[in-house]
Amino acid sequence: MIASSPGKAIIFGEHAVVYGRHAVVSAINLRCYVKAEKSNDFRIISHFGKTGLDFRGEHAYISYAIKRFSESFSIRGVRIEVRSQIPPASGLGSSAAVTVATLGALNAEFEAGMDREEIFELARKVELDVQGIGSGTDPFVSTYGGGWIIPEKRKFSSNVEFGVINTGIESITSEMVRKVRELKEKYPELVERIMDSIDQVALEGARALENGDVTKLSLLFKINQSLLRAIGVSTPEIDRIVADVELSGHSAKITGAGGGGCLLTTGEGDFRIKLSAEGVRVEDFEDWREPYNRQV
Amino acid sequence: MIASSPGKAIIFGEHAVVYGRHAVVSAINLRCYVKAEKSNDFRIISHFGKTGLDFRGEHAYISYAIKRFSESFSIRGVRIEVRSQIPPASGLGSSAAVTVATLGALNAEFEAGMDREEIFELARKVELDVQGIGSGTDPFVSTYGGGWIIPEKRKFSSNVEFGVINTGIESITSEMVRKVRELKEKYPELVERIMDSIDQVALEGARALENGDVTKLSLLFKINQSLLRAIGVSTPEIDRIVADVELSGHSAKITGAGGGGCLLTTGEGDFRIKLSAEGVRVEDFEDWREPYNRQV
Repeated sequence: MIASSPGKAIIFGEHAVVYGRHAVVSAINLRCYVKAEKSNDFRIISHFGKTGLDFRGEHAYISYAIKRFSESFSIRGVRIEVRSQIPPASGLGSSAAVTVATLGALNAEFEAGMDREEIFELARKVELDVQGIGSGTDPFVSTYGGGWIIPEKRKFSSNVEFGVINTGIESITSEMVRKVRELKEKYPELVERIMDSIDQVALEGARALENGDVTKLSLLFKINQSLLRAIGVSTPEIDRIVADVELSGHSAKITGAGGGGCLLTTGEGDFRIKLSAEGVRVEDFEDWREPYNRQV
Repeated sequence: MIASSPGKAIIFGEHAVVYGRHAVVSAINLRCYVKAEKSNDFRIISHFGKTGLDFRGEHAYISYAIKRFSESFSIRGVRIEVRSQIPPASGLGSSAAVTVATLGALNAEFEAGMDREEIFELARKVELDVQGIGSGTDPFVSTYGGGWIIPEKRKFSSNVEFGVINTGIESITSEMVRKVRELKEKYPELVERIMDSIDQVALEGARALENGDVTKLSLLFKINQSLLRAIGVSTPEIDRIVADVELSGHSAKITGAGGGGCLLTTGEGDFRIKLSAEGVRVEDFEDWREPYNRQV
């Protein structure tokens, strides 16, 4: 059986959310597809390569998803095949999406009867298995789909589309989170006030998204990017890209941890994303080309 | 008689100081020299040209300085000649410096016996005559010299030198102040939190200046510039210059209103400035070349 689940974009509030402030996050229309087939052993096939269970390599999330699933539902083996539309290590939630889609595919293939809540709980455990820490936001959004204001988990909807610019620079989340923590330890009052500022941007940003107010979104992108720059998670290379976007009359901001990864822009990017209401789902097709030919 | 007075640099806190937060400002070692000679009429000579009293043109500050002085000390006429080391319209306080130096020269030439407090009070009036609004900070620093944490007017001293990058883009203070006020009217909570952040930068910055901590200054320059960018007073052109400076391992920030003008940098600039303790003073030379050959 094939299941799929969406990537996500943090639209406002990354980093500040680690310190209790608001963030605005949404599932997007880029999805990860996972086919699970009963087998006598364990095989995982993705664009990273072919492995068995691979807890420390590129297939860590999938391997732990199988492990967590098999703790509840005894299985002899499974062949997992992955096709993802979500660029990896770019802040667009590819890890959570492959985890949730794997759990969804296992659930369908082995007729385990898990509901979304149970899938989310397992995906949350997998995130901690692999990363040690994690807010649970990515597995949540990838499971349920839709747009969310966190930490309250208040739902919003918006028809706004964004461009995505892939900087091509690898973003290492743990390093960026550590960098901000160190700055905060050194200058607590200063960083708290910047986090308060980001909090206000996120609250205004949620309103702008709901109202489809692109002018306001563009202004808030610029402010949020400036505040992310203030806490040290932009780079001169990103600043130059952002300056180019602004000269064209739009704005752009880091999405996710920063230091590289992807930028969201109100202008044209390398590709476009829509916000999506769709969470994890079982797919009815057998042909792998189908999701790429469908409008998701 | 010739008198001179210094330009100033806002090192931290521009714009936020308009909303009651701290700023760190200092006299610098670039000075404006004004020669006043008794005459039968009024003539003003500067690199802008030769005029009579000229309340609405390039010599507005000088003309109002003569007017305010003549309200207390009746004079038939005066020939004013100006030579300034301070680039005009660059955020380095050239207007206040020419005002204070003119008052100093008039004071000496006509033996009016004003003390610094009286010179400052007249310069403050001239600022309002020409600009309509003004914090009085520039005339204060140009009169008394030294480094000041405002609004408390707590004095500090520092041996740190900075580079100055002249963007070559004209900075129109009133336009930038209006832009920030409009943003604040639209998003009061958000802008207040950014102003709070700048306040913290200024307080940390004063400590870093007193301790000669250039590493910390560089970090705080970057943060302050980011926060100025957040309130809309940077430009993509400035952002690119700043990115270039950061790639060379230093940092840079707007000094003054932004939108153009000068940047302060911890690296090399177009020229260097030192913070200076010296306020308005009467000069003992008659040779105009002297200040340019002296180490001030």
